[in-house]
Amino acid sequence: MKIIETIHDMKLFIEQAKRQGLRIGLVPTMGSLHEGHLTLMRQAKKSCDVVVVSIFVNPTQFGPNEDYAKYPRDLTGDSAQAGKAGVEVIFHPQAQEMYPNGYNSFIEIGGITQKLCGLSRPGHFRGVATVVAKLFNIIQPDKAFFGQKDAQQVLVLGRMVADLNMNVELEIVPIVRESDGLAMSSRNAFLSVEERNAALILSRSLQLAQQLVTHGEFNVEKLKQQVIAVIQAEKLAKIDYVEIYSYPLLENIEVITSKALLALAVRIGNTRLIDNIILEG
Amino acid sequence: MKIIETIHDMKLFIEQAKRQGLRIGLVPTMGSLHEGHLTLMRQAKKSCDVVVVSIFVNPTQFGPNEDYAKYPRDLTGDSAQAGKAGVEVIFHPQAQEMYPNGYNSFIEIGGITQKLCGLSRPGHFRGVATVVAKLFNIIQPDKAFFGQKDAQQVLVLGRMVADLNMNVELEIVPIVRESDGLAMSSRNAFLSVEERNAALILSRSLQLAQQLVTHGEFNVEKLKQQVIAVIQAEKLAKIDYVEIYSYPLLENIEVITSKALLALAVRIGNTRLIDNIILEG
Repeated sequence: MKIIETIHDMKLFIEQAKRQGLRIGLVPTMGSLHEGHLTLMRQAKKSCDVVVVSIFVNPTQFGPNEDYAKYPRDLTGDSAQAGKAGVEVIFHPQAQEMYPNGYNSFIEIGGITQKLCGLSRPGHFRGVATVVAKLFNIIQPDKAFFGQKDAQQVLVLGRMVADLNMNVELEIVPIVRESDGLAMSSRNAFLSVEERNAALILSRSLQLAQQLVTHGEFNVEKLKQQVIAVIQAEKLAKIDYVEIYSYPLLENIEVITSKALLALAVRIGNTRLIDNIILEG
Repeated sequence: MKIIETIHDMKLFIEQAKRQGLRIGLVPTMGSLHEGHLTLMRQAKKSCDVVVVSIFVNPTQFGPNEDYAKYPRDLTGDSAQAGKAGVEVIFHPQAQEMYPNGYNSFIEIGGITQKLCGLSRPGHFRGVATVVAKLFNIIQPDKAFFGQKDAQQVLVLGRMVADLNMNVELEIVPIVRESDGLAMSSRNAFLSVEERNAALILSRSLQLAQQLVTHGEFNVEKLKQQVIAVIQAEKLAKIDYVEIYSYPLLENIEVITSKALLALAVRIGNTRLIDNIILEG
C-alpha cells in the first residue's frame, strides 16, 4: 500500500491508473478509522479496481470552537487497517497542501444545509463540500463511498454532484453499529466509560421511535417529544437537536406519510454525537 | 458541426471522444459571437483535436437590474461562424437544463472578487465561477480558452481552477479590438452610431495611460486622475470604475513597480462596457 502526501503525486498516480483503464473508488475519511470506514473500503473493493482512502482532518469543516485540534489522528494504525482492507493508496496531505496561502474558493450548497448540523455548525457543510470537491478533482473517482451515519452530509454531497454535474457516482453505505447499538464514530474515542454507556441513549431513542411508528404513531411532534423525553432522562446527555424531516428533501412535515429522517445530535459530556434513522410512514 | 442541447448527450459525446484519446478544447461563450470569440476558437484548434463552444446566456451571472433578457442571442448566425472556425460541437443548453428546479449549489471565490466588477455586479463572479465549473464537469476539457478582455474573470477562474484542483489548463488570449481600438464585445451591438463613437474613449484612455507610463509616470493616483479626466470629457460616458491594481494579485498599490492592471467600466448611454490594459513599471 502506498501513502501519497502531495496533490501532484496523487494526480500522477491516478493518471497512470486511468491510462490502464482501472476503475477508481474513493473513501474520503478524516482518519481514526473504525469498522464503519472499513465497511466503506470493503464495499469499494467490490466494484473498483483501485481503492483510494483519503485521510485528512479538514480544517474548513470545523468551527472555531470545535474539536479540530483534538480530533483523533493515528496514521500508523489507520495504515495498518486500510492495508488489511485491501486499500491500494492512502492520500494523506497536510492542511497547507490542500489550503495553501491565498486559498479562497468555496462551494456553498443552499437549502438543505440550513437545518440540523448546518444550524449548529455554521460553515460545516461549506467545508465538507469544498474538500470533497477538491478530492474528487484530485482523485477523479468513478465511485465515492460515504456512510449514512452522516445523513445530511450525504444529501448535501448528492446535491453538489447533481448540481455541478460532477462525473462521480456516490454509494451510500448503511450505518455500522457496535453490538450494543452505538453508531461507530471516531469521536466515540473521547468518551469515558460512564459516557460510553450514556451514549447508548442515541440509538435507543431511535429504536423507540421506530417501534412507535411500527405501532401506528405517525405524528411528528408526538414522536419528537417521546424521543426528547427519553434522551433528557439520561443526565449526561444534552440535546443539540432532535428533528424529523421528509426524506430526502428535508422538508417540514407534521405527519409521516412516506420516508422521513429522524436525526439527532446530542452532547455526551463534551463530545457531540450524531445518529439517525429513516422512518417509513 | 453538431449542436448538442442536453448535458446527457454532451457527456456521451465527450466520453466517446476521450475513449479515442482526443484532446478537448472548450471555448465558453454567451453567444452573439464576434472576432474575439473566433480568435479563441482558432487558438483552441491549434492545440486541441475537438473544439467545443458553449453558447449559454447564463442567468446566474446577471444581476436583477442587468441586461439578461435583452442580451443579444443569435444561434443561427453563431453556428455559421463557429462552423467556419472549424468548431466540432456547439453546446447550447436551455437555462432549465443547467439550473433545474431545486438547484442550490454555487462556487464562491473570495478576495479578488471584492473589487472592480465584483463591486458593481454583486453575485456576478459567483455565477461565472459556478457555470464554468459546471461546463468543466460536463465537457471535461484539457484546455479552456478565455479572453483577456474579462481580465478579472480570468483571474477569478484561475483562482478557482488552482484552489479546487481542477484538471484543466486555462489559456488566456489577448484582447481583440476593432481597427479603431474599440474592444470587441457582444454588447457593442447595443450602441447607436453616436454611442459607438463615444465608446472609443475607453481604449483611448488606456492608450493615454500607457503613454504616460512610457514617459515615466508611475504614480497610480495621478494616472487614474488623468484617465478619469479624459473619460469625463466625453459627455455620453459615465464612469462605473477606473482602477489600477497590482497584477495578478489585484492588491492596492500607490506606485507601479512591476505589472499593474488598469481596468475600467464605463456606461455609454445604457450600455456598460469594460476594457483594460496591463501596465509595466
